[in-house]
Amino acid sequence: MTKEIPADQSSAVSPLAPVGGFPELPAIDGVTIATGASGVRYHGRDDVMVASIAPGSSVAGVFTRSSTRSESVRDCEKKIALAARTDQSGPFGLLACAGNANTFTGTHGRDCVELTASALGRKLGTSARRVFTAFTGVIGERLPVERVLATLDGLDLAHGAERRPDGFERAAAAITTTDTFPKGAGRRIPLGDREICIAGIAKGSGMIAPDMATMLAFVFSDAKVDQDLLQRLVGTANEATFNSTTVDGDTSTSDTLIVAATGRSGVEVSERDPAVLDSFGAGLECVMLDLAQQVIRDGEGATKFVEIEVRGGASPESSKRVAMAIANSPLVKTAISGEDPNWGRIVMAIGKSGEAVDPDRLTISMGDTLVASGGESACPPDEIERTLAAYMRQPEIRIVADVGVGSSAATVWTCDLSKRYVEINADYRS
Amino acid sequence: MTKEIPADQSSAVSPLAPVGGFPELPAIDGVTIATGASGVRYHGRDDVMVASIAPGSSVAGVFTRSSTRSESVRDCEKKIALAARTDQSGPFGLLACAGNANTFTGTHGRDCVELTASALGRKLGTSARRVFTAFTGVIGERLPVERVLATLDGLDLAHGAERRPDGFERAAAAITTTDTFPKGAGRRIPLGDREICIAGIAKGSGMIAPDMATMLAFVFSDAKVDQDLLQRLVGTANEATFNSTTVDGDTSTSDTLIVAATGRSGVEVSERDPAVLDSFGAGLECVMLDLAQQVIRDGEGATKFVEIEVRGGASPESSKRVAMAIANSPLVKTAISGEDPNWGRIVMAIGKSGEAVDPDRLTISMGDTLVASGGESACPPDEIERTLAAYMRQPEIRIVADVGVGSSAATVWTCDLSKRYVEINADYRS
Repeated sequence: MTKEIPADQSSAVSPLAPVGGFPELPAIDGVTIATGASGVRYHGRDDVMVASIAPGSSVAGVFTRSSTRSESVRDCEKKIALAARTDQSGPFGLLACAGNANTFTGTHGRDCVELTASALGRKLGTSARRVFTAFTGVIGERLPVERVLATLDGLDLAHGAERRPDGFERAAAAITTTDTFPKGAGRRIPLGDREICIAGIAKGSGMIAPDMATMLAFVFSDAKVDQDLLQRLVGTANEATFNSTTVDGDTSTSDTLIVAATGRSGVEVSERDPAVLDSFGAGLECVMLDLAQQVIRDGEGATKFVEIEVRGGASPESSKRVAMAIANSPLVKTAISGEDPNWGRIVMAIGKSGEAVDPDRLTISMGDTLVASGGESACPPDEIERTLAAYMRQPEIRIVADVGVGSSAATVWTCDLSKRYVEINADYRS
Repeated sequence: MTKEIPADQSSAVSPLAPVGGFPELPAIDGVTIATGASGVRYHGRDDVMVASIAPGSSVAGVFTRSSTRSESVRDCEKKIALAARTDQSGPFGLLACAGNANTFTGTHGRDCVELTASALGRKLGTSARRVFTAFTGVIGERLPVERVLATLDGLDLAHGAERRPDGFERAAAAITTTDTFPKGAGRRIPLGDREICIAGIAKGSGMIAPDMATMLAFVFSDAKVDQDLLQRLVGTANEATFNSTTVDGDTSTSDTLIVAATGRSGVEVSERDPAVLDSFGAGLECVMLDLAQQVIRDGEGATKFVEIEVRGGASPESSKRVAMAIANSPLVKTAISGEDPNWGRIVMAIGKSGEAVDPDRLTISMGDTLVASGGESACPPDEIERTLAAYMRQPEIRIVADVGVGSSAATVWTCDLSKRYVEINADYRS
């Protein structure tokens, strides 16, 4: 579009960003990453990230369920299914590009996916059917694909960026759009004298909702995992991580999570060894939760990081729907933005969820303060206000609600709704 | 609460308010209204409205479906059902009070409903079971009911406010909270040499969502209508009016629509006379749509009135869910606030609805401009921007989307999401 991106949108780092900056991530044997600058939308920064994933790796993916999802998402879905069924060989390739979503541009969009996947396939000496693409940015505008292809041409995968100390950070920065900081997370999982490493990067800031936070996330491990098992582990971890976060309730057309396991550590993860399986599953979920929470910490205009736990629900799914009703309520989110302990709006949001709730047994806590129990206020409003005034000024807020009908629970994460969210989204073409 | 209500929240009338101010409404024979000032929350203004509805009237109601709905709502639901089943006599009474929702305050809240209904019943010489109450305002704070009772004592229903030229307007003003203007609508329906009159008032501004906009609405007519028929007509009209509007997707605990028909015109509305039935049904829907749209025009912080029509849906319900997904999308609403013809976000919202959609046949128009068709942009982005720049600056925006799978349609109404919405809701305890 012709609109310029205001400079202050990229300059101010979210006040909720993790302290200490981008974490040190373990290099993943078998994965080579490179970045480049295509100028599709952004200038003076990298905006293309490419990964080569060694032959013999397994790949799993979770994608947006939007019915208007992008051509890349539809293409990745097919290729993941294909990789599970066939015995192809050669490396896998991954291309991500920020600035244009390559979505809702008809046959042109389809052509762009084919052209970029083929080009990267040729560069890696592998079939285009083993190359995954992901685009993020403005919907409905034609991608100037020649710029991406020219950038691909110039990339040196033999000396990939992740070999350098700032490799994953450069990759994480290259895929950002309205993000104010690059997002990475990793774990080293010791297993006796062996070790599994996991490293992941993500981007995402707005258009974040259940059925995948609106984001791209790429996670790599040197574990050896059968593709079906990897897909199951990723699906389970996804429910408790990316699918338990929301910024604005809006679901992207391009949400993509791809997890690759190269096997180069020589450690096999399988049902036959429950200890290794559990360690790997927990490590994967840790990395994914860390990334998902970083996306929330970078929520557009966010000034508060909010954890919402719902207990006493009829089922885990029901508990999660109640938690998401609270997390997505504009009135709850604006109250938190205003540092107002307005728990009446939490009662409202629980009520609108449509889930089984016993109003007469409902309890609500904010931080350590019980604000409501047994269907009414737990102490006089002025006292609640005094007790909670300091708490509400904290950058991290925790809300626990017990809906009093069962024994299930769920936890979700969100941020507040501030004037800055409106400013960013009234002005930025995303 | 201890917080003061900022003066500017009540002073600035919405830029979308109907021109010409409060409409002239027909007096309804058999209905007497009075207002008073209790000082429960607001000072220097009336905040209590009472109506006496003549014996022989029928009464219908629609209420919030929130599982944390107020004691008044639960009480009204029972009384409406009772009125249908029993052959009680005497007038009906109606009490509405602004400033405190009398919700989620346990047995105290239940006592307040009983005390106020009994007091008004005694005043009107009727059973408390024929008195409906409605409270709107802060959730979870105890209602200082003695102030409401004292105010009731002082009201003069023999010389009710609606007998004065500004009667309904005073009543409409008495029930407002964050509203910036009082809302009224009426129709005179000529039927040969006879006439049916309908007059209604409403309040509502935020916490407005499907399953009743968050609001109170009271509609009176001098038609003679059997209660079962009246309830059916009100239910049908409600789907196409209040239930087709949204400000913020948040559902109140106190939504109440009560419709009373006194029969004093002598005109009977029944299945036996389809012409009269249709005229009354259409008139009722007209009044309710007018009131519902006024609530949207007074949406908190609203600067744009937005009509969204979805065509080509699999069913009317599916079309409405797609329309509501667009209407409730923070990203669509902020784009409209920023006067940005960002139709890509409409594609996103349609996709997240979960409804049957054919992306390759999707068309979207904004005003008279076709912005997308056949699964892609209908003209270059810069041209869309030029063509639509002036349109997006208008206070009223119309979006039409055809999802290409069926022949059903639905229309809903909403407003934009502005910084002012956040300001109002970060600071106001509702």
